Amino acid sequence: MLVVGELINSSRKAVKEAIQAENIAEIQKIAKDQRDNGADYIDINAGTFVGKEAGYMKWLVTSVQEVVDTPCCIDSPDPKVIEAVLPLHKGVPMINSISLEKERYDALLPVVSGADCKVIALCMSDAGMPETKDDRLSIASELINKLVKNNVPLENIYVDPLVQPISTNDAYGREFMNAIDAIMTEFPGVHTICGLSNISYGLPERKLLNQTFMVMAICKGLDGAIINPLDRQMMANIHAAETLAGRDEYCSNYLTAYRDGKLAME
Amino acid sequence: MLVVGELINSSRKAVKEAIQAENIAEIQKIAKDQRDNGADYIDINAGTFVGKEAGYMKWLVTSVQEVVDTPCCIDSPDPKVIEAVLPLHKGVPMINSISLEKERYDALLPVVSGADCKVIALCMSDAGMPETKDDRLSIASELINKLVKNNVPLENIYVDPLVQPISTNDAYGREFMNAIDAIMTEFPGVHTICGLSNISYGLPERKLLNQTFMVMAICKGLDGAIINPLDRQMMANIHAAETLAGRDEYCSNYLTAYRDGKLAME
Repeated sequence: MLVVGELINSSRKAVKEAIQAENIAEIQKIAKDQRDNGADYIDINAGTFVGKEAGYMKWLVTSVQEVVDTPCCIDSPDPKVIEAVLPLHKGVPMINSISLEKERYDALLPVVSGADCKVIALCMSDAGMPETKDDRLSIASELINKLVKNNVPLENIYVDPLVQPISTNDAYGREFMNAIDAIMTEFPGVHTICGLSNISYGLPERKLLNQTFMVMAICKGLDGAIINPLDRQMMANIHAAETLAGRDEYCSNYLTAYRDGKLAME
Repeated sequence: MLVVGELINSSRKAVKEAIQAENIAEIQKIAKDQRDNGADYIDINAGTFVGKEAGYMKWLVTSVQEVVDTPCCIDSPDPKVIEAVLPLHKGVPMINSISLEKERYDALLPVVSGADCKVIALCMSDAGMPETKDDRLSIASELINKLVKNNVPLENIYVDPLVQPISTNDAYGREFMNAIDAIMTEFPGVHTICGLSNISYGLPERKLLNQTFMVMAICKGLDGAIINPLDRQMMANIHAAETLAGRDEYCSNYLTAYRDGKLAME
């Protein structure tokens, strides 16, 4: 399971203030905390700073990589920002994200084609958000085939089928999970990834829904997640789900997590 | 989701003592507590009392049904015991369980054939416990087809694919879950049910594994469970999983459970 730590995002008030104040100690602490709790990638996002995003993203990638060896997930809706930040990154970056939307696809394809990077491929086209499993599989298929043809190896692609709130349509959870299953079955070797919090939008006890949904998605084949690695219950659920899904030889990762005190809740 | 409350079982020390002392108040309290917390059936099991099982089971069914309208799940390895208890039961009982083992099958078939009862069909044959998804599907298919031919309606059959500990084989969780999927897909209208605690045998933090496994099994189609309905976290996970799986129109059961205070953890 590839865990992308989501905390360095300027939509969070404390992070926004730390970025504006160029409080490097605070940003570096968040990076280290996430690494220490199991993040494989540190997401960096300064999307709320219109006009200043590229400058802040450069500062973020440099600040983070000064203290952790963990690579970054360069998270921006603007391909120009991603292109500007990449030369400063050490190691194999993850790019968040390409999609079938023509403008974004055309701008990012030259960046990822033949490059040594992982890329998140959103199931989004100019026709808008997908609703059903079939919508998602259709967009994912076209996007994967195009990327592979353009020298992006299948195993570098992390398809995000896009979670939508079940409060707006009670079938959205099922459609998403069946899309994970279909994509992983149709393209052996590809990966899937998602953020979670949209699923519970508009409903009470959101943590319960988010954690439960993560377990179900893993059951359907999900092998990447953009989450808060400091959420102990979420991480414990992920450990348990991976072991139960048969992805943990001799249950040894589970036992290691137990010995490291990562499974017990207060 | 059909919830069978598992607490009235003589393998639990307090229950064993209550049965021996004919402490009717204690047994009735456990029955009411389970009903109040969501049990659709009350399991009764006196299997540890060799030679006295039938007598105790008759006392249990009568005592329980004095105070709750919830039907019982008559749980015994001995077909003669089941047959002796059934005439005392009011409402539609559940029988736990028939299997492909010749002796058990032959003795129970006349009891369930054409009767108004639900029946748990264990994926067990004289060849022993199943290991793989295919083992389970093969036993389930034969058992379902035989039962249906003998006037047991498909919708009264609850197939239990039998959980085995992942500590003994790290593929056992996956094989079980894929069996749920295969059985529910192959026989639309049939049900699946299971107990859980075997899955985590021999591993630490068993509650975490049991709860996570329940969510994964629901994701694969499980629609019955033999559990402790007083386990608030387990019941909250079930509510969340059913809603996320698209089995809860307008999320209304979830919202009702929330309003009834069943989702919040301490």
